[in-house]
Amino acid sequence: MEGLREAGRALAAESARYAALGWMRGTSGNLSVRLRDEPLRLAVTTSGLDKGELTEDDVVVVDADGVAVPDQPHPEKVPSAEARLHGRIAAVSGAAAVVHVHVMASVLAAERWPGGVELIDLEMLKGFGRAAHDDLVTIPVVPNGQDMRVLGDAFEKSFRADTPALIVARHGLYVWGADLLQARHRAECLEWLLRFKVESER
Amino acid sequence: MEGLREAGRALAAESARYAALGWMRGTSGNLSVRLRDEPLRLAVTTSGLDKGELTEDDVVVVDADGVAVPDQPHPEKVPSAEARLHGRIAAVSGAAAVVHVHVMASVLAAERWPGGVELIDLEMLKGFGRAAHDDLVTIPVVPNGQDMRVLGDAFEKSFRADTPALIVARHGLYVWGADLLQARHRAECLEWLLRFKVESER
Amino acid sequence: MEGLREAGRALAAESARYAALGWMRGTSGNLSVRLRDEPLRLAVTTSGLDKGELTEDDVVVVDADGVAVPDQPHPEKVPSAEARLHGRIAAVSGAAAVVHVHVMASVLAAERWPGGVELIDLEMLKGFGRAAHDDLVTIPVVPNGQDMRVLGDAFEKSFRADTPALIVARHGLYVWGADLLQARHRAECLEWLLRFKVESER
Amino acid sequence: MEGLREAGRALAAESARYAALGWMRGTSGNLSVRLRDEPLRLAVTTSGLDKGELTEDDVVVVDADGVAVPDQPHPEKVPSAEARLHGRIAAVSGAAAVVHVHVMASVLAAERWPGGVELIDLEMLKGFGRAAHDDLVTIPVVPNGQDMRVLGDAFEKSFRADTPALIVARHGLYVWGADLLQARHRAECLEWLLRFKVESER
Repeated sequence: MEGLREAGRALAAESARYAALGWMRGTSGNLSVRLRDEPLRLAVTTSGLDKGELTEDDVVVVDADGVAVPDQPHPEKVPSAEARLHGRIAAVSGAAAVVHVHVMASVLAAERWPGGVELIDLEMLKGFGRAAHDDLVTIPVVPNGQDMRVLGDAFEKSFRADTPALIVARHGLYVWGADLLQARHRAECLEWLLRFKVESER
Repeated sequence: MEGLREAGRALAAESARYAALGWMRGTSGNLSVRLRDEPLRLAVTTSGLDKGELTEDDVVVVDADGVAVPDQPHPEKVPSAEARLHGRIAAVSGAAAVVHVHVMASVLAAERWPGGVELIDLEMLKGFGRAAHDDLVTIPVVPNGQDMRVLGDAFEKSFRADTPALIVARHGLYVWGADLLQARHRAECLEWLLRFKVESER
Repeated sequence: MEGLREAGRALAAESARYAALGWMRGTSGNLSVRLRDEPLRLAVTTSGLDKGELTEDDVVVVDADGVAVPDQPHPEKVPSAEARLHGRIAAVSGAAAVVHVHVMASVLAAERWPGGVELIDLEMLKGFGRAAHDDLVTIPVVPNGQDMRVLGDAFEKSFRADTPALIVARHGLYVWGADLLQARHRAECLEWLLRFKVESER
Repeated sequence: MEGLREAGRALAAESARYAALGWMRGTSGNLSVRLRDEPLRLAVTTSGLDKGELTEDDVVVVDADGVAVPDQPHPEKVPSAEARLHGRIAAVSGAAAVVHVHVMASVLAAERWPGGVELIDLEMLKGFGRAAHDDLVTIPVVPNGQDMRVLGDAFEKSFRADTPALIVARHGLYVWGADLLQARHRAECLEWLLRFKVESER
């Protein structure tokens, strides 16, 4: 699979970065990048490993349903169940990189505003791809669940092209973008925004 | 003692990791790994040293009572008194690795819920070995004390095979697992869960 | 431009430092140093890049209006719009280094005290260039905006020579000094002071 | 001065450590070690430097009054005014290492309990040199001031041989011990205890 080695290397580096921030405790969270469009192929971090210690090989190629495809170096590897949601997000949003991290501020905000977290008139919204003024941004919150079809439907129902993030209540945060770097920058800005929200409206 | 050098190296690396997280301030906390089953032998970090600066030699072999055995490179080394509780936990739970760290969120939670800290419907519970839904997890809390037999009895009374952790009130947290990596992942997930609990129910 | 390479190197190093503190999430914030007096020339960090990964080349030379001058290695580079405020601060205050970082405590304090944040009788004020006793320091707070002329006017109106900082509400903090090191030390001390203020008067 | 180079190296390493913890923001704080007993000579970190970037030369030898002695490599170096309090603490307590750091939890606690911060029945008190049970520890709090004689008198009035720490309100924390390592361990444990106190009694 073309670009897989490079993708694996990038996913390992990004994972180590998020792990150092405390956003991927244990083996939690997963990242993906788009390898090909039609049919859709994503490289997703392997399930069950310490996200601070991944190597370029700790990656699985999945299709739009999050199922490992046969044509890859290690087709026996098991992707996270959440790979299916990555696939859904990539397909619906067109994103080429999806980041799923267990950001504390995101679950604290969802606990307080289960109907969606509203952010407005904050400069950091620009780093999330929105305007700093007069532009109400609502980060959708969906209930947690293990059925990725249900979660995917909830995502799709809440999806707006201008809001590249989703909070899964009592679970964590999904953020996406045109590449891993954009997704990272959006995730970092959104974490700051959610922390500000939770702290300032305590 | 077979495997001792490897155990010492692993314990030093894990300790440095926890120290960097601020979970082993001063010389606090201790880690152990099982070296042999019958009779039970544990390698425990040496008492009184900076946990961020251990070497592979800073380890003592103890029996099920936490007493240093004569047959080891440095039988004169003094294990922490808490080695006895490590022995008890290893014997009762069957764990091969026990982690004792002074996690702030664990003592804050115990202060608030001295009868046990209840966690439910949180994704991170999976990283602790439980279900994300409809599975009430109660982290036992026992009062602090210096008599390890009393502490061990309190642990045993509160022990449930499906709950690999114990909070000692106004002291810290014990977490265990099949190896140091599993114990680490459980400890990281539990810290996140306790922090969420304390922050969200403030 | 004389000193540009050295300036670029220093700006990259300082940016990485602030990024590690979490004060430059995403691509947020920007730093500048004075290269020449008449006409005023500043080296400013390039817009849109990860502030933890800048190189010595990621720098633009701007004039007092924050406009890139033609005489530089890469005149096509686009400075941040905020470069104009850097220019204004440098011109008005005489500072040779301006630091703009998105410090959480600064926006939390501005949210609570939108008319200005008062600090008094705190030892850390010495590190900010003021007295530790009987010297009321008011950090000005101005509303956020995208028109740098309006922001600059608000800055100038609030400017006092003995108070080398400005909070832009719901945005972040500007701090300045005689060089990057002095600006850093003032920024670090002010962050500590604002955190103390927010935490102690909760 | 015998041992000066070694002392300078140790002070630089310890300072970098505290700076990384955020306890020596700007150029704040200072550390000292005893070089000789009669007459008392201390090596103290030089004033006005970034505590994360000290070298082994950034040290001044002072007498019991905190005055630089002539017999040293760089007698022109200016010690911090606080060197005088280091001298007083060393003389009165017999400590061979004194650590002065601007720990946030210490000033928050002093703000709340200006008559002294009481700690009891906490395991971490053992790391501070006290008992984990039934042993009321009161960390003295004295008002901030710039006259080191006044501060020294307040210290001496509050001094108890079994309580190796002092909080200067709205300023920071002094901790001491038999060497830099013991002082560090006590400082780390006390920071944890003060954080617990502030967080749990919010």
